[in-house]
Amino acid sequence: MKKIRVVQFGVGPIGASIARLMRQKTTLEIVGAIDKDPVKVGRDLGEVAGAADAPWGVIISSESQTVLAKPVDVVIHSTSSYLPSVMDQLLECLAAGCCIVSTCEELAYPWRKHPDLSKQLDSAAKEEGVALLGTGVNPGFVMDKLVLTLSAVSQRVDWASAVRIVDASKRRLPLQRKIGAGMTPEEFRTQVAAGLIKHHGLPESIAMVADGLGFALDDISETINPVIAEEEVKTEFLEVASGQVAGVHQIARGTAAGKERIFMELKMYVGAKQPSDTIELKGEPNLSLVIPGGTHGDVATAAVVVNAIPAILAAPAGLRSGRDLPFSFFPSLAAK
Amino acid sequence: MKKIRVVQFGVGPIGASIARLMRQKTTLEIVGAIDKDPVKVGRDLGEVAGAADAPWGVIISSESQTVLAKPVDVVIHSTSSYLPSVMDQLLECLAAGCCIVSTCEELAYPWRKHPDLSKQLDSAAKEEGVALLGTGVNPGFVMDKLVLTLSAVSQRVDWASAVRIVDASKRRLPLQRKIGAGMTPEEFRTQVAAGLIKHHGLPESIAMVADGLGFALDDISETINPVIAEEEVKTEFLEVASGQVAGVHQIARGTAAGKERIFMELKMYVGAKQPSDTIELKGEPNLSLVIPGGTHGDVATAAVVVNAIPAILAAPAGLRSGRDLPFSFFPSLAAK
Repeated sequence: MKKIRVVQFGVGPIGASIARLMRQKTTLEIVGAIDKDPVKVGRDLGEVAGAADAPWGVIISSESQTVLAKPVDVVIHSTSSYLPSVMDQLLECLAAGCCIVSTCEELAYPWRKHPDLSKQLDSAAKEEGVALLGTGVNPGFVMDKLVLTLSAVSQRVDWASAVRIVDASKRRLPLQRKIGAGMTPEEFRTQVAAGLIKHHGLPESIAMVADGLGFALDDISETINPVIAEEEVKTEFLEVASGQVAGVHQIARGTAAGKERIFMELKMYVGAKQPSDTIELKGEPNLSLVIPGGTHGDVATAAVVVNAIPAILAAPAGLRSGRDLPFSFFPSLAAK
Repeated sequence: MKKIRVVQFGVGPIGASIARLMRQKTTLEIVGAIDKDPVKVGRDLGEVAGAADAPWGVIISSESQTVLAKPVDVVIHSTSSYLPSVMDQLLECLAAGCCIVSTCEELAYPWRKHPDLSKQLDSAAKEEGVALLGTGVNPGFVMDKLVLTLSAVSQRVDWASAVRIVDASKRRLPLQRKIGAGMTPEEFRTQVAAGLIKHHGLPESIAMVADGLGFALDDISETINPVIAEEEVKTEFLEVASGQVAGVHQIARGTAAGKERIFMELKMYVGAKQPSDTIELKGEPNLSLVIPGGTHGDVATAAVVVNAIPAILAAPAGLRSGRDLPFSFFPSLAAK
């Protein structure tokens, strides 16, 4: 059986966890890795990714053109949350005839926020006969794909909600920092205003769910507030005193004719008591779905991305989203 | 916008509920109905389906050939649980160039039990450039499609289970009878032996999940036992004394090399205390998902079938399953 040739584009924490998972799939062959960080360039991907079986014989390069000149089936792209800042990277991969699965949050459902960039990507992909997809656990799965999947048993949907509560205590330090854990409320607000604290993707999830359910939204709004610690919380990496910020609390709403049709809430903080993902649909019938404990962000994002590889290879050419594709586990023939 | 032309093939209780739901979709036009029951032939579909807005001007005919000679995009087929007994009907619809969504349980994932019939249907569909799908809530959704969808966040899956507990108290009388409610345990066993009591579909769900997760099963086993009422249960239609049968308890297992890899359990009985659908995946990570209250069988089956119409029209020609297709709500432009 011919292996699927993959390139890892971006070797940050998420890219590294994706690479380690890809390494476990006998049907995949990692043929290259791209990163512009001088600390990583020239080093072995397995070593940078912290893999037990390193070295892998795959050297990280900053020369994307050289890496993509070889035969590559899929690029796994993980460099930024913002679509405008990765357009050149994505277009370069498409021009090289590669399918793409990207963790770029704004690519998960880009048509509403970036209609022109979406068209550009769709045309470029179709020209080369390849497909691209932005996905991950959120956006990409728990607050959109899973909502739409549940809606398959609905005769009518009037309102949809997705609430995700994540306990950041056991997550990596950069994530704990990114959500403001340990800051004063003032520091938090300054960082929010500077665009430094924010989980990206709620508007993308709302747009995907709205289109899937046929809601013609006229507005998507979003708020970010701190979760304040009510008691001291200690993690492996930091301490949060009572009254300090424990994490973020984001709410997004999709409204049509002044009426709320979609509600999404994300609480990601250290010391969260009952982490879970909960979906609710009101209509005929009323339905709810719970994932007790919730899906672990980093583990699940790597999984969703790698599991999407067969689907994106089988997809019609163009810009795709979780709405169009069946999502499922990607079985390996056997562990390597 | 051009409407999708549908024909309802089979106007039993499920066919009737499907027809009523299709009537609510502005994008669908019901252009015909087929049933061989002389009590129904010649009558208006809306009247037979018990629709508030009957008559619909669609007369039920026993002449499938005549009905299918008109331009039809999709046939909604709902006549039997057994694939061999509906092959002629399905092949006739395919030969007429129609896509099919069927509630035939054995069609939900027929490759394992009926490999030859599956090939025959796949070839016939491809010859006409159309696609067909067997689906419903179970098999078709809660114990297979939803399991596979959840597995998209898994890095590794060792074992999967789906447990469905249905309170039959509020379901229609034929269903309460079909599960043996009110029988003595002896009557129940006699009816099971005669093939009269059985929920179909667990082996199909197991086969779909196994293929999706890459489990090479060497056996799928199935047991049927009665749930015995521990106290008297009264429904709108019947009474079950303590010690009598309240319903069915089915267990199915998929094993590979003597090891259980997939477990499915269905308890459908009057007086069930905590109806729910629960999925569990063991692996990396361990995951569970609960639909508290569970999905209502009749309501959800009609929904899944009608919601699958856009997906089957967009699907590549051939025999499809829930594994291949994205499942989601099918929005109507506006209520009729």
